Amino acid sequence: MTVQETATGTDATGGRPVIPTRGRQRPLGLHEVQLDSGFWATRQATNAAATFDHCESWMERLGWLANFDRVASGTTGRDRPGWSFSDSEVYKLIEAMCWEFGRTGDPALDAAIRRLTERIGRAQDGDGYLNTCFGHANQPPRYSDLEEGHELYNTGHLLQAAVARLRTSGPDELVEIARRAADHVCETFGAGGLQGICGHPEIELGLAEFGRALGDGRYLDQARLFLGRRGHGTLRDIPLGRAYFQDDVPIRDADVLRGHAVRALYLTAAAVDVAVEDDDRELLETIERQWERTVARRTYLTGGMGSRHQDEGFGEDWELPSDRAYSETCAGIASIMLSWRLYLATGNVRYADLIERTYANVVATSPNADGRAFFYANPLHQRTAGNVPDDGAVSPRAESGARAPWFDVSCCPTNVARALATWHCYAAAAADGELTLLQYTGMRINADIGDGRRLGVAVQTAYPDDGLVTVRVLEAPADAVTLKLRVPSWADGAVVEENGARRVVEPGFVALHRAFTSGDEITLRLPIAPRFTWPDPRVDAVRGCVAVERGPLVYCAESVDLPDGIGLDDVVVDTAVEPVDRDGRVVLHGIRRGAAEPGPAWPYGSARAQGIGAGQSAATATDRRAAVPTGQAPAIELVLGPYHQWAERGPTAMRVWLPTRQ
Amino acid sequence: MTVQETATGTDATGGRPVIPTRGRQRPLGLHEVQLDSGFWATRQATNAAATFDHCESWMERLGWLANFDRVASGTTGRDRPGWSFSDSEVYKLIEAMCWEFGRTGDPALDAAIRRLTERIGRAQDGDGYLNTCFGHANQPPRYSDLEEGHELYNTGHLLQAAVARLRTSGPDELVEIARRAADHVCETFGAGGLQGICGHPEIELGLAEFGRALGDGRYLDQARLFLGRRGHGTLRDIPLGRAYFQDDVPIRDADVLRGHAVRALYLTAAAVDVAVEDDDRELLETIERQWERTVARRTYLTGGMGSRHQDEGFGEDWELPSDRAYSETCAGIASIMLSWRLYLATGNVRYADLIERTYANVVATSPNADGRAFFYANPLHQRTAGNVPDDGAVSPRAESGARAPWFDVSCCPTNVARALATWHCYAAAAADGELTLLQYTGMRINADIGDGRRLGVAVQTAYPDDGLVTVRVLEAPADAVTLKLRVPSWADGAVVEENGARRVVEPGFVALHRAFTSGDEITLRLPIAPRFTWPDPRVDAVRGCVAVERGPLVYCAESVDLPDGIGLDDVVVDTAVEPVDRDGRVVLHGIRRGAAEPGPAWPYGSARAQGIGAGQSAATATDRRAAVPTGQAPAIELVLGPYHQWAERGPTAMRVWLPTRQ
Repeated sequence: MTVQETATGTDATGGRPVIPTRGRQRPLGLHEVQLDSGFWATRQATNAAATFDHCESWMERLGWLANFDRVASGTTGRDRPGWSFSDSEVYKLIEAMCWEFGRTGDPALDAAIRRLTERIGRAQDGDGYLNTCFGHANQPPRYSDLEEGHELYNTGHLLQAAVARLRTSGPDELVEIARRAADHVCETFGAGGLQGICGHPEIELGLAEFGRALGDGRYLDQARLFLGRRGHGTLRDIPLGRAYFQDDVPIRDADVLRGHAVRALYLTAAAVDVAVEDDDRELLETIERQWERTVARRTYLTGGMGSRHQDEGFGEDWELPSDRAYSETCAGIASIMLSWRLYLATGNVRYADLIERTYANVVATSPNADGRAFFYANPLHQRTAGNVPDDGAVSPRAESGARAPWFDVSCCPTNVARALATWHCYAAAAADGELTLLQYTGMRINADIGDGRRLGVAVQTAYPDDGLVTVRVLEAPADAVTLKLRVPSWADGAVVEENGARRVVEPGFVALHRAFTSGDEITLRLPIAPRFTWPDPRVDAVRGCVAVERGPLVYCAESVDLPDGIGLDDVVVDTAVEPVDRDGRVVLHGIRRGAAEPGPAWPYGSARAQGIGAGQSAATATDRRAAVPTGQAPAIELVLGPYHQWAERGPTAMRVWLPTRQ
Repeated sequence: MTVQETATGTDATGGRPVIPTRGRQRPLGLHEVQLDSGFWATRQATNAAATFDHCESWMERLGWLANFDRVASGTTGRDRPGWSFSDSEVYKLIEAMCWEFGRTGDPALDAAIRRLTERIGRAQDGDGYLNTCFGHANQPPRYSDLEEGHELYNTGHLLQAAVARLRTSGPDELVEIARRAADHVCETFGAGGLQGICGHPEIELGLAEFGRALGDGRYLDQARLFLGRRGHGTLRDIPLGRAYFQDDVPIRDADVLRGHAVRALYLTAAAVDVAVEDDDRELLETIERQWERTVARRTYLTGGMGSRHQDEGFGEDWELPSDRAYSETCAGIASIMLSWRLYLATGNVRYADLIERTYANVVATSPNADGRAFFYANPLHQRTAGNVPDDGAVSPRAESGARAPWFDVSCCPTNVARALATWHCYAAAAADGELTLLQYTGMRINADIGDGRRLGVAVQTAYPDDGLVTVRVLEAPADAVTLKLRVPSWADGAVVEENGARRVVEPGFVALHRAFTSGDEITLRLPIAPRFTWPDPRVDAVRGCVAVERGPLVYCAESVDLPDGIGLDDVVVDTAVEPVDRDGRVVLHGIRRGAAEPGPAWPYGSARAQGIGAGQSAATATDRRAAVPTGQAPAIELVLGPYHQWAERGPTAMRVWLPTRQ
């Protein structure tokens, strides 16, 4: 049976990471969306021009690629470089290259993909098993450490790479390698086989989509089996507890995401795939409730998820420290993968809202402007300026105030690569007689809206720098269809204008239903004036603070923008004065604290602080009434920039949440 | 040479953990202080009656004691139970038993000490090496893992146990075992030997005091060598960085305590010992500056130290989260050890202030009332009620809202045992012609104040329940001497009364200099009315919150004291109403938040919260202006209890820092 024969019901070359067989919305494909210049087109260009080579050269230098050659040549040893999941970085890079190749057709990318595929293929065992860390000479046996070994996790990423290849250039050797690996997994872990699961969910995502792409139900069946086994203590207990890898509670019984954030999000995204393919409404609704509570109580203003360094995990409800926010880049990407699947299944605008927030403030924050250094963790508060990692050095995973070229655990750079290469896939969606614009940038869309009808539009905008979005109809069927525009949740007082008629629209979707003709123009004006944002009082870590947002962008203050001798701890914000836009930066009215260094000997005292260091001496009470009204303190201009640009000018202290004058 | 001969210049039976050869203050000995009933006498009694047996039986059950037998019988194997530092728990228990035996002379304790000593002695190698984890059959070689192996750490605790034995009942087999072990360390790591140090400081403390107790300078020399080697990258680098074990910066060049809290505090305490013995003023002043900044910026209201779970370490300045406070019990005890050495060297009252705070709010908090369960970490905020650990189960080290009988890493119970057994050693100090009362409880003191003069007093008080302290002179020399009373830093408006004369005194020391006669009575009235305490505004984690203290005790709110259906997140404090004492508990005027469950879909919004959930929906802006003035919210009586008693009534949510009505 060839791929073409099995591809019925799916679009094997649709250039989309997710193609459910049912759902409220249909993702647009490769040839239906093209970006012009703009915020995201720039990042896609840098990704292709710099990040791909950067990742491949690091993996060559560290021997992660040579690991495949050593398996092929039978020279594996105990000195294998890299963690057990290093194979997955190669697969994620290939996946990114495939999506990018589908977009641009750059032959150099195709050559790179074939080159890497050849090295990988030679490492595959006769029975389809493919892994460079287990099962060969001087290595532990296959599947001898399901908790930590990441064997199935690696395979899951291989399958996602194959899906990208299949949908952007058709079946080839990579797809066949993946099929053999997937078959091996089904034979080994099927109903009659090993009743195990992988400590790091991902194989479920890979199997579900690979099955969709090939139209092969066995792979979805295996994904369903893995999901069903999880949550029953199938894995060995570990010091961090089974919640770490979501083996504590079955996904149908859970009420919130918990444990390791990336694990939880990959798992839940795969559960949506299974729920959709099975038309399992109960499971889908359970997952929607888990998403709701997670977003309402365990998510950062940036869209970032994961509050704890100790286990890279979610904290409890309202546990959202700015300074120790882990907010791993990969967790942001995994959150987008989950929200996108939920959007396609339900058509609920809230999922597109979170996707925009997370792309703009987590994914866009990770890479440096040159695409060759990355943030792994994305804290909302950097207390002291970090150190710039040595260009040639591998950084520890997350403890830095500066982007690093590569990490010991380096999941983020290749994840950023595939996330940027697919941004356009999340920009719009279609349904029968309907086109929905979800994200805004300069782009051309020509969408199949069913029954052979096409709706084509050109979107012109400088968003997010500017709030004016112009949508010009290029092609439309004769009969009435619906054009939906997403009005972001923060967009209070957005205005839609067509045929000279203006109306204020609420956040959510604005549906324009009529017969469009080529040349029709609709404008959407989004209010991108900077605004103050306040936290729910139950978020203890940022009580008494305010943040500034502008359009979809979270802003932050950096110490490099302060006058010499003034630190971020010395300033409070006077929120009686509205924030002012100054060429894309935001100016606030700050008030300098009189805080004398070194400040009190004991930081707790009987004087209520008025913006300067209160507190009594540990020795005497003499400086106990140190507080002075800030009204007497000097005013200072506080200039904020977009959070996604922080530390681009070098090490700096940084705050998203700024203390307010009480 | 016998111990007696070498003991010149030290009091070999003084019953004190620390006896410097010089310093501003002299610690009082075994026969100079006796406690009556009271807060600390009760805890010492429970410690002796329950905690010792509890610890020994757990270590027997887990095989930590049998590890010594297996070395003796040559049956060591890879299946050795316990961590590499489990030997030290046995030594800490013996140390506690020795101090307690010195206090009470209970023959059962003496028998237990001899019984344990015998088992330990049989495990000692011919050359003095003593360790159950390294250097024997099926074990890694001696000193093959200085970073993590804890060999010298274990020996340091052996030496401290021997010091306790020597000073409470004289030389015996335990002291000889320790001497052989100490000699082995000096021979192995001396100037011409291995240039290594231990990943966990402690050997330095043990060597310095053992040297003092024996009057043998070689041990102090070795301690000085170890201290000098540290901070130069002597140990292998680790993912957490060399700051974790203070091998990043020489102690003379550091400006604040950092890295693993217990390691940093043990190391610095030993550095004080060396500085004092060497009369090294520069080193002593450096350490005083490090203490100042650590206390001013890296210490919790309870006196607890260590903000991070990830590395059990100090955070950065002002990084003091309540909910994730690690505040390890052992770190509190180590902090007391450091502050006591600094007090003896300088006579500065601030060190006694921190000792009182830490004993009352960290050490007293760890054990359950029955002395058979303990807190390892001491957070200031428990978001959800914890689970009561199974009585027979070993708990993970720190993640619980309930005290556990024992831990996988179980350093805290035995440390609590030795800390409680020595509380009276910190209650007073003497100098030439001077007696200083540092801590208050019912006790009798008869102190040698030099030149054969003695000053004896009886202290009567119900402190900390009550603020009245009566000091009656029992014995005094004919000439004028000084009686100093410590007025705690929080005691605003304390009053001293003698011979009918009353005067208000400032926090610090009140010195009464005159000729006292038997029967003279001095009363000190400390204001123990409950008070609000406010944080320095730079402590981000508790901005907009207030705490309540009463005398030396920190108070907390527990969810078990709230009406059904009301959680700690639903209440804010109206600080316009002063706290009221009600039989040792404190009543506040609380205001209930109108926060509707499940609350907003997105916890950040354009409405400034007034005490209820603000924030806009992730989907729409409809509930964006949800805030209502708290003036309309119902009042609620908020009853607080002492923090050291929290969770004694079972699992509960808890807060020390309470949000205030803005």
